[in-house]
Amino acid sequence: MTDTEERLLARVALTWLTEPGTWSVHRLVDQLGPVAALDLLLDGGAPDATLRSAVAARSAAGAARQVAEQALRRTERLGARMVTPEDEEWPAQVADLRALRLSATGRRVDLETAPPLCFWVRGASPLGEALARSVAVVGARAATPYGTHVATELGYGLADRDWTVVSGGAFGIDSAAHRGALTAGGLTVAVLACGLDRPYPMGNAALFDRIAEAGLLVSEWMPGAEPLRPRFLIRNRVIAAATAGTVLVEAAARSGATQTLNRAIGVGRPGMVVPGPVTSAMSVGAHEALREHPRARLVTGTAHVLEEVGRIGYDLAPPARAPEQPRDRLDDEAVQVLEALPRRKAIGVEQIAARAGVDLRTAMRKLSMLEELAMVVRRDDGYALAPPPERAAAGDRAPTGGSPSPLVTPPC
Amino acid sequence: MTDTEERLLARVALTWLTEPGTWSVHRLVDQLGPVAALDLLLDGGAPDATLRSAVAARSAAGAARQVAEQALRRTERLGARMVTPEDEEWPAQVADLRALRLSATGRRVDLETAPPLCFWVRGASPLGEALARSVAVVGARAATPYGTHVATELGYGLADRDWTVVSGGAFGIDSAAHRGALTAGGLTVAVLACGLDRPYPMGNAALFDRIAEAGLLVSEWMPGAEPLRPRFLIRNRVIAAATAGTVLVEAAARSGATQTLNRAIGVGRPGMVVPGPVTSAMSVGAHEALREHPRARLVTGTAHVLEEVGRIGYDLAPPARAPEQPRDRLDDEAVQVLEALPRRKAIGVEQIAARAGVDLRTAMRKLSMLEELAMVVRRDDGYALAPPPERAAAGDRAPTGGSPSPLVTPPC
Repeated sequence: MTDTEERLLARVALTWLTEPGTWSVHRLVDQLGPVAALDLLLDGGAPDATLRSAVAARSAAGAARQVAEQALRRTERLGARMVTPEDEEWPAQVADLRALRLSATGRRVDLETAPPLCFWVRGASPLGEALARSVAVVGARAATPYGTHVATELGYGLADRDWTVVSGGAFGIDSAAHRGALTAGGLTVAVLACGLDRPYPMGNAALFDRIAEAGLLVSEWMPGAEPLRPRFLIRNRVIAAATAGTVLVEAAARSGATQTLNRAIGVGRPGMVVPGPVTSAMSVGAHEALREHPRARLVTGTAHVLEEVGRIGYDLAPPARAPEQPRDRLDDEAVQVLEALPRRKAIGVEQIAARAGVDLRTAMRKLSMLEELAMVVRRDDGYALAPPPERAAAGDRAPTGGSPSPLVTPPC
Repeated sequence: MTDTEERLLARVALTWLTEPGTWSVHRLVDQLGPVAALDLLLDGGAPDATLRSAVAARSAAGAARQVAEQALRRTERLGARMVTPEDEEWPAQVADLRALRLSATGRRVDLETAPPLCFWVRGASPLGEALARSVAVVGARAATPYGTHVATELGYGLADRDWTVVSGGAFGIDSAAHRGALTAGGLTVAVLACGLDRPYPMGNAALFDRIAEAGLLVSEWMPGAEPLRPRFLIRNRVIAAATAGTVLVEAAARSGATQTLNRAIGVGRPGMVVPGPVTSAMSVGAHEALREHPRARLVTGTAHVLEEVGRIGYDLAPPARAPEQPRDRLDDEAVQVLEALPRRKAIGVEQIAARAGVDLRTAMRKLSMLEELAMVVRRDDGYALAPPPERAAAGDRAPTGGSPSPLVTPPC
């Protein structure tokens, strides 16, 4: 067994011995590395009594390294893979969860919120790349037709502009967001709170298969792990930290659905909320969030979401995929028009105007300006984004060979 | 003719010579009094050319004092009356319009926004008293069934808690708010942008008659004045300044309906906005206002509105009508329960819980506490507010003989 394999095995064993997100475990791994941290815990050397008894209880059920070996074999049979901080595809931004030890309101967060030790992943895209330019769309399971409609539109609109749509795979808003992204032919990531072989809810099994084909299924729990209630809250922190921002669509009063939003704000991501009719019980939680969180932002559609995450998204994205634009020189309407253009094809001016939410004359004026700046090109069938080399050349900051953004720490 | 009659006549003549809200006229009246100000203007001594030519144009159409005399006779025939700053019933808070020379965003406001010179009033209640504890509910004429429903509920809920509902008498949201207040048997005030004998819109003539019977019709324009377009914007400043806060229910994109909201914020009143479905064109302006005004506050119903205007309302209200409560010692839920009680009758615990938006057990717990504090009394048919004398005795600050609130300047 190579050193790398041993470290992987230790991470899996640690995941089984203790729930993901446990701060004391995270600190041990940070200080000693996963192998020595595992040895210490198995020797009864856990730094606190709760952890010590949790490890003892688990160890009584089997030998940790043996369980981990079985889990890895099961992972392979599933067609899934492990991703750890040692891998290229690790989404480094989840380290921002360290900020979450205090909540957005300054109160101590008691739930387990340490960064993940490892992920199980099903799907072809590299995990880090898929999440580099991603937005979370979350909300109530008991969604109304209104909420389902809005979440589907958001999923579609974001995917159509090449943003990955991340959600939790639940019924209602989550499913609608995933489906919208799939319909647009975009990437979508479902972050589950159980093993990848135990799709929960079962009624979404077919949806999970489509997501695994076109996007990614992700979990911090090993195959076979059950969707226990507290795991959903632990899982939510990953959705909040892995994405450039979280949009809440529908939530009942004092609902758990607002927790992901709070976590997102807590790690410095934009927390966005879609309002609804004040007569709808499923919008009460959304309105509460807007009233109570000074940093929660009201959004009504894809354009508003892009406004919030736009810059952060570009920062998170690897330079090769998102060359910097001379956007700072553009006025708001020009940016809206630019963002209305799909990544790969040309569309007509009327469609651009509708997407950008500007009138036809404004769209035409801004498009001519953008054409002069070599940021868009005119074609027979409308306007398209200028191909990357020219766009890079027009940029203020050359993207090639630049140092990675400060948010993207090199894999360790 | 007495001095008082002369001053009144001068104010009416000034209103006819120049549009209400003109700063240079307001300043002249402030410095010289209405009679000398009128003489100066009629002698061609207006301080600026625009005003000079406006006065000249009007004077060519008739002698100002004669027109004013006719207007006063017509006022009497209408069963209406004049209210000026010299009268007891003048709503002193409209003087806060002086703050409006700069807009909420710091830009110069070019529209006429000076405080009014006088009001025409139809209805029995004293104007100042009716407005002392009032909230404006305004919005789109082309309201949706959703907006109409919400405005009616707000009008009803506010009136039911003894707040006067102020609006502009237009179709849509305005009418719904007035009707809700009338249904609750409460006071409602329609501030018109034309003469009181020319109800606009005509389709609301019956509604205006009901308002004049149960509440007040108010205008800054003399009988016969037409509802010219700019007058609606001039009128809006009165709605904003005369009330303790303005609630916007539905507004189309970039709509004039948000102007009253901006004015309210500009004079330091709470600006409140009811959200709606993001799929509704009639909520686009409401959502814009919530996104663009850092001080606009999202509200979903009467309870939220009372939270915002509650304290200001008590400050504006004459002490005799609103004895101070030891509310500062109560927690939020107790305040909600207390505010859920109607002013004059007892209601059941279940109804109280529903109105307060708390569960039954909480309602019962808070009611016992309020009973111990002698703020509510238990009766056979439920709970009621304790009668005023006892409530005043329980208060921290005795209301009797207190000096008027700083917001209420003595009539001059």
